[in-house]
Amino acid sequence: MGRWEPDASGRLRLSAMELYAEHGFEQTTAAEIAERAGVTERTFFRHFADKREVLFAGSSDLQDAVVSAIGAAPAGVKPIDAVLAAMEMGASLLPNREYSRQRAAVIAANPSLQERELLKFSTLADAVAEALRRRGVPNLTASLAAEAGVTVFKIGFETWIADDSTGDFAQCIRDALDQLKALTAGA
Amino acid sequence: MGRWEPDASGRLRLSAMELYAEHGFEQTTAAEIAERAGVTERTFFRHFADKREVLFAGSSDLQDAVVSAIGAAPAGVKPIDAVLAAMEMGASLLPNREYSRQRAAVIAANPSLQERELLKFSTLADAVAEALRRRGVPNLTASLAAEAGVTVFKIGFETWIADDSTGDFAQCIRDALDQLKALTAGA
Repeated sequence: MGRWEPDASGRLRLSAMELYAEHGFEQTTAAEIAERAGVTERTFFRHFADKREVLFAGSSDLQDAVVSAIGAAPAGVKPIDAVLAAMEMGASLLPNREYSRQRAAVIAANPSLQERELLKFSTLADAVAEALRRRGVPNLTASLAAEAGVTVFKIGFETWIADDSTGDFAQCIRDALDQLKALTAGA
Repeated sequence: MGRWEPDASGRLRLSAMELYAEHGFEQTTAAEIAERAGVTERTFFRHFADKREVLFAGSSDLQDAVVSAIGAAPAGVKPIDAVLAAMEMGASLLPNREYSRQRAAVIAANPSLQERELLKFSTLADAVAEALRRRGVPNLTASLAAEAGVTVFKIGFETWIADDSTGDFAQCIRDALDQLKALTAGA
């Protein structure tokens, strides 16, 4: 208590993920996460509203970065290219592959966390579509480009965590978009 | 009680939608829905597990129809065309536009219903991807085609309910796919 905590938030996240992987999400308490991270429970709750939030704390940073990147795209950039660049920017914010893989496994094992994750992606798609509309992209095109962006982010993520031999996450997103282009072109 | 009920399920759905629109989803009880439909509460619970299920009862029929349609596509049909045909088949199962619009408004007003709806779409995408894999479509292509199919279904639905002057739902889905193709081709 009271002593300065270097990156308590990061230690809490790592400790939470270890405990979720060892004992399951439901069986882990905030007190146990705090203990493993070497901080008090009060410190836990200064950083996170509850043990679910430890898993989703990065989502709003991701959304902010993606929306900013769309706003910052040069005039005249095609919607799909603006979305791709924004998703690559978002990808750069994710923790390393092993942490991301563990997080995905915890979420896949818990329906209420899955629903939360889906809602985050849906909110991200809405925010991307709105950012595109502010650039003058027509309504329907903006919605479709946003959904396509979230799709290649999600599928690229799955490819990335499935196999250590793939490229980095941004490369997996680019590959997914290339495949989506080939698919819609009737390949 | 005891008398034969022609299409009690359909009357319960319509009554539920009226009450959700008039008083809100949270404020409506199963007993009130049953009363308006002219059936007993026991009859309500013979058809639906709870008042949420009234809104989602059609989802598994939709998924079954979409998956069957993918399985039934002629050999050699391109994945995106198989998915489009399946989504059009699914679209044909939806109730009329006014009912669909009311349902969408009830869901939009309630975060827990939104999460449920998102989970249904995610489950649908997984089922479509699996049906494509059974046809020999490669893993990543199957996932992307399924996501693209659900995207054009969702966006087509929004277009359809937004404006009575649009074509039917299947036409809105085809239009959305045409726009997605143009978008990914860099238009």
